[in-house]
Amino acid sequence: MVSKNRQILLAKRPQGMPDESTYNFIETDIPELNSNEVLVQAQYLSVDPYMRGRMSDAKSYVTPFELNEPLKGGVVGTVIESMHPKFQQGDTVTGLLDWADYTAIDGSQLRKINPDKAPITTALHVSGMPGLTAYFGLLDIGQPKEGETVVVSGAAGAVGMVVGQIAKIKGCRVVGIAGSEEKNRYLVNELGYDATINYKTTDNIRQALKEACPNGIDVYFDNVGGEISDAVFSLLNFHARVALCGQIAHYNDTEVEMGPRFLTTFLKHSVLLKGFIVSNYTNRYEEGVRDLSKWLSEGKLKYKENIVEGLENAPDAFLGLFRGDNLGKQLVKIR
Amino acid sequence: MVSKNRQILLAKRPQGMPDESTYNFIETDIPELNSNEVLVQAQYLSVDPYMRGRMSDAKSYVTPFELNEPLKGGVVGTVIESMHPKFQQGDTVTGLLDWADYTAIDGSQLRKINPDKAPITTALHVSGMPGLTAYFGLLDIGQPKEGETVVVSGAAGAVGMVVGQIAKIKGCRVVGIAGSEEKNRYLVNELGYDATINYKTTDNIRQALKEACPNGIDVYFDNVGGEISDAVFSLLNFHARVALCGQIAHYNDTEVEMGPRFLTTFLKHSVLLKGFIVSNYTNRYEEGVRDLSKWLSEGKLKYKENIVEGLENAPDAFLGLFRGDNLGKQLVKIR
Repeated sequence: MVSKNRQILLAKRPQGMPDESTYNFIETDIPELNSNEVLVQAQYLSVDPYMRGRMSDAKSYVTPFELNEPLKGGVVGTVIESMHPKFQQGDTVTGLLDWADYTAIDGSQLRKINPDKAPITTALHVSGMPGLTAYFGLLDIGQPKEGETVVVSGAAGAVGMVVGQIAKIKGCRVVGIAGSEEKNRYLVNELGYDATINYKTTDNIRQALKEACPNGIDVYFDNVGGEISDAVFSLLNFHARVALCGQIAHYNDTEVEMGPRFLTTFLKHSVLLKGFIVSNYTNRYEEGVRDLSKWLSEGKLKYKENIVEGLENAPDAFLGLFRGDNLGKQLVKIR
Repeated sequence: MVSKNRQILLAKRPQGMPDESTYNFIETDIPELNSNEVLVQAQYLSVDPYMRGRMSDAKSYVTPFELNEPLKGGVVGTVIESMHPKFQQGDTVTGLLDWADYTAIDGSQLRKINPDKAPITTALHVSGMPGLTAYFGLLDIGQPKEGETVVVSGAAGAVGMVVGQIAKIKGCRVVGIAGSEEKNRYLVNELGYDATINYKTTDNIRQALKEACPNGIDVYFDNVGGEISDAVFSLLNFHARVALCGQIAHYNDTEVEMGPRFLTTFLKHSVLLKGFIVSNYTNRYEEGVRDLSKWLSEGKLKYKENIVEGLENAPDAFLGLFRGDNLGKQLVKIR
């Protein structure tokens, strides 16, 4: 057990892409516990695109990270010490913890996980927040019906991979949009996507989509925004549904980008679009975790992880999300 | 009874605004009836913005008007002759009929109206299609709750006027956007709107909206699109709803206009947007007509009509919708 606690603080709110000046690496003492608190040693840290929003202080659905405080993210770790009746030393837990070796947190903010049931990292993706995001966005907003065509952008991301697989479970034709041949091969060969489009090498995304979706598009699960969405919107069927989950193309914009107006199309086709965040569904998490865990244990949900070693590499792993580096869930192994 | 039937045919599909070349005025014989048909002499014709869509042959939710056939619109008229068991000479009826003195139509396409209950023209607006459009768009998509703020664009149009009044019935703060002082005075003084914005004389619509909506915007009923919607979108509250009813700013566009991308805002605020047409609600018309008629008879729904005389003036009355001429429902008196 190290005697110091490494932390990564938010030093400065980034304009555009985060860079070195965004972060401050410090060493501090391991925190003392107050009543009901638990000391957790991080094993794996999840980096996710939505964190970019929390680095800004613009009005948003999530409270901004505090300046000069540790950044926070999904973590699985081990209980080192507990002042909370529900947790004991040695328990494996997950929660929203510091980018740090250790976090002291009220036990009510933690969830215990069973390391014998599934690899503990799955609590950070397939059966965790990204999985639940896919589950509720696709099923509650997208409402896919058997035989319909579902298009997923950011298809090789942590959320996208689960979306496509659930859509296959529901009997849909699934078309994924991702940024490399390697990703697309994985989506088709391993996850059972019916077709994929490499947006980085395709001249005309709309034409490629038209070919991949001969019956038009009924459901669009959007993680990306921008020109990819423009192309999808032009091919939506009557009564199509758009689950707006992410707009990663725009998170680092410093001013509002212009794009073609598409609402006349939405009007003509009675399209429904709904922006959402997973916390809108807090009161239904149990249902989601149950179904996702069941599909996982049945082998219907596969996953891929991309693990970087070392807390100090978390900032670069986070940036990789925007460069499109990651095939599968990006994790940082801390211990 | 005139011995000839004047008709206005679609001579050419317009590019941009319709003009003289769009129409062909002819005189023809009064049609003979087949079995189950009814001959209706038009009294009032309704001109509505959605008709612009039917003049084009682009893929849309409504079938295009046929070239060299009469244009069609909502009409109230009198039964001259009937081969249908449900209708008799002298009945007052409404339906989608020709821009003409006379139409022969299958009786199943007509609805009888009681001229003693309300002025017959109300079947073309408050308790007809525009009223039902307002009713279902606002209540089913907008779901306004007491105390919420509802913004209506095209507020002085046939649909907008009903939207605002239903929102008042539901206990909301109602802010209307329209294009003249006269219209806005009417909305506030006669229809009970809480505030209005004249988009033609206001430099900064966003700032004006901000002042008119101190608690942000919960429901937006959009008839217009374009820059007005851009301003509204930037002020939507968490879980706001947008009922997308019309995009009159764009019906005469000849190419796709560019505008600021707003989906990041929709994502941050979990906004729902749904395009719709009234025919999505066909199986609930009865409920809508019942409520609208009740509110009308209780004096809770007021209306204003703008009546132009003469079938020959229908094309100009239709263009007036795009010029923003009309305060209230634009009708053409034919007989």
